[in-house]
Amino acid sequence: MTTDEKIQAVREEVAALHAELVRYGLVVWTGGNISGRVPGEDLFVIKPSGVTYDELAPDNMILCDLDGNVIPGTPGSDRSPSSDTAAHAYVYRNMSNVGGVVHTHSTYATAWAARGEAIPCVITGMADEFGGEIPVGPFAIIGDDSIGRGIVATLEGHRSRAVLMQNHGVFTIGKDARDAVKAAVMTEDVARTIHISRQLGEPIPIPQDRIDALYDRYQNVYGQKPQGEL
Amino acid sequence: MTTDEKIQAVREEVAALHAELVRYGLVVWTGGNISGRVPGEDLFVIKPSGVTYDELAPDNMILCDLDGNVIPGTPGSDRSPSSDTAAHAYVYRNMSNVGGVVHTHSTYATAWAARGEAIPCVITGMADEFGGEIPVGPFAIIGDDSIGRGIVATLEGHRSRAVLMQNHGVFTIGKDARDAVKAAVMTEDVARTIHISRQLGEPIPIPQDRIDALYDRYQNVYGQKPQGEL
Amino acid sequence: MTTDEKIQAVREEVAALHAELVRYGLVVWTGGNISGRVPGEDLFVIKPSGVTYDELAPDNMILCDLDGNVIPGTPGSDRSPSSDTAAHAYVYRNMSNVGGVVHTHSTYATAWAARGEAIPCVITGMADEFGGEIPVGPFAIIGDDSIGRGIVATLEGHRSRAVLMQNHGVFTIGKDARDAVKAAVMTEDVARTIHISRQLGEPIPIPQDRIDALYDRYQNVYGQKPQGEL
Amino acid sequence: MTTDEKIQAVREEVAALHAELVRYGLVVWTGGNISGRVPGEDLFVIKPSGVTYDELAPDNMILCDLDGNVIPGTPGSDRSPSSDTAAHAYVYRNMSNVGGVVHTHSTYATAWAARGEAIPCVITGMADEFGGEIPVGPFAIIGDDSIGRGIVATLEGHRSRAVLMQNHGVFTIGKDARDAVKAAVMTEDVARTIHISRQLGEPIPIPQDRIDALYDRYQNVYGQKPQGEL
Repeated sequence: MTTDEKIQAVREEVAALHAELVRYGLVVWTGGNISGRVPGEDLFVIKPSGVTYDELAPDNMILCDLDGNVIPGTPGSDRSPSSDTAAHAYVYRNMSNVGGVVHTHSTYATAWAARGEAIPCVITGMADEFGGEIPVGPFAIIGDDSIGRGIVATLEGHRSRAVLMQNHGVFTIGKDARDAVKAAVMTEDVARTIHISRQLGEPIPIPQDRIDALYDRYQNVYGQKPQGEL
Repeated sequence: MTTDEKIQAVREEVAALHAELVRYGLVVWTGGNISGRVPGEDLFVIKPSGVTYDELAPDNMILCDLDGNVIPGTPGSDRSPSSDTAAHAYVYRNMSNVGGVVHTHSTYATAWAARGEAIPCVITGMADEFGGEIPVGPFAIIGDDSIGRGIVATLEGHRSRAVLMQNHGVFTIGKDARDAVKAAVMTEDVARTIHISRQLGEPIPIPQDRIDALYDRYQNVYGQKPQGEL
Repeated sequence: MTTDEKIQAVREEVAALHAELVRYGLVVWTGGNISGRVPGEDLFVIKPSGVTYDELAPDNMILCDLDGNVIPGTPGSDRSPSSDTAAHAYVYRNMSNVGGVVHTHSTYATAWAARGEAIPCVITGMADEFGGEIPVGPFAIIGDDSIGRGIVATLEGHRSRAVLMQNHGVFTIGKDARDAVKAAVMTEDVARTIHISRQLGEPIPIPQDRIDALYDRYQNVYGQKPQGEL
Repeated sequence: MTTDEKIQAVREEVAALHAELVRYGLVVWTGGNISGRVPGEDLFVIKPSGVTYDELAPDNMILCDLDGNVIPGTPGSDRSPSSDTAAHAYVYRNMSNVGGVVHTHSTYATAWAARGEAIPCVITGMADEFGGEIPVGPFAIIGDDSIGRGIVATLEGHRSRAVLMQNHGVFTIGKDARDAVKAAVMTEDVARTIHISRQLGEPIPIPQDRIDALYDRYQNVYGQKPQGEL
């Protein structure tokens, strides 16, 4: 595959994956964004800013370098990239094994984030997917590297591919854009289920060794092929 | 553009935007209504009363003057305009920078309104969009100008483009009909997220200077072009 | 219109209206049922029992007399009518102004019914539509006239077109099948909104004279033509 | 019908029924799975592992023996069967009257399961369908027969066709795959309704003799033909 072919493939995947955010109700209006790293290149593809989900197409996705600068003269470069581009870029620069990043304000995840509370690992599907709790990152606002730094500082060395940024929303990472979208979907699913469970009492904790066993099996055995290491 | 062309453009936009109220689950049956000012004219276009969402089309939208009177002989003028037309008209007469008005009984916003409680600004997306809390307007019922007066008195000089009318529902304003619809969608989104967050504890407050910084950036930088001043 | 034409028109309306129960999420699987009186005849049309919503069509709707007996030799008469047919028939026999009946186990209405608690009238849209609280009927199970009697005893002389049958679900009535479906949709809408409002405090009561004024206006003025008297 | 025709019929039914899990919101991403026994044979058909709902088709369903081994050389046998195949197989080996098994992590059912709390029978539709409470099975994780044993030990001799596996999700059984899917849909429906009811107080209990009467009638009379005995 040439570099151009790789870029085109990521454009198509990133554009198409936004439909999954809509399908699972993770976004409203123009909120939320997905990016994907171009394999083997210091480039990533991200959603344009303030454009509706109905309008997204491979050719209006925006190609950026790892500092978040738009590559001039490429398709979509007449538009601004997502206002969260700096945070995505920071993650790609600092976590070399990350191939995809997703950001949403999905309802239940953001509800936990507004209280600054981590989601406890009390269902086996969450142990499979996240290997423990989904942690909370710092309060940080747009304007410098503070969101990106908060994501990396929280997820570096953590099993979870999702972080709840306090008072803000959720960022997820993955081996590619699809894997990061899966993490975003599963984050909202467990955020919702565990919220509802706690409304009428306390969920029963799962012993740590059982969480470890579930996580290990799922990362290595489940699905038609082994999951990537993250 | 001639006046007729401008009227036709607003008819098309207002009719089409009602689909967004359905898409985001803000309305049931024939509830909810959108209007749009005809730019540069003392006219606005509004949904007919008691007509289903499946039947809405540019030609059955109703053209009114700023006192809420139907303009005779225009398409749709054989029907009654929305029963909330007087409230929309009052807003257009008294807030010259408003180009669109939306009214819904969306679930979570109305739940806050029934308790007469403002929605606190505890998520950054709400700071972006509303610049602070979404305030509560007075209890007022149809029959005179009291709903319109309540909307204007509450929103005049407020950053929020949305007001929760006590025991009733939500009215939003915008620079045009699309902007007011966006405000209605975002109102329900934050009403829901913050409701859910509060079910299991208290959200962490966001410092006022951070709210101010987020609002300022979003109104001036976000999206493909600057947002209107409202 | 001949009797046959009237029957056919009601078959078509009743079959089509079931899609509204699906659209508004009021039913799952084969649950829920709608019936419509044939105007001027001692007949009504009702959904067959245990048939999926995808299969419903005018020709498998079932024609019954006012004792709930299937009219032999008519389209659909090879199937059993809804297991709630006796309750629908009882209503038509005893409330001559009722032209349509709907039964669902919609989530929020049934949640109130399981506690045996009436839904208080704390939002203006509920005052418009129901003129006050939605009352609770007795605990009654299938096998005799007790469900039908409970519906009639509760709704006779009440403004509400909806009754929550204790531990069971909701029955609504209307001037025709469409009006009863509207009442079912609005019942779930207010059941949900007021439930959510009460989760975080007490809604503000609406004074009785304001409820009366709203109900009077809505029944006589709203929509493209006056509402029926029920 | 030849064995091959029976296998093909079950492949088609099992593949198609997965759409019902999506329609009723019981699954996200590749979660959840359905299997169906091939009538009169020691075989069952199950969903492949880690494959999206959009890709499911009769020819990628997987044929297994009652020990959960894939039958070599049959369509789909190049993929792995669902990671829950051992649990399905255990149920078919030990409950000869079961013709279908469904597993989901549906939100409200899993919320009860995370607290290890049975769903009480406080609505008549639940008495019809389940004949009493939906019980909780033990905490068990993938790797041996413990999930299968927990399902069978809990449901053997119980009226309920659904079991909440602690901290995990729900398994349902039926006379065929369709009946088990219906049980999964109704489990989530009652889990949700009764959860919501309990948020604002205690539901009124239904006397045991009334539960018995409802269950008896529904299993023997409801629908166009008698229900299977399970």
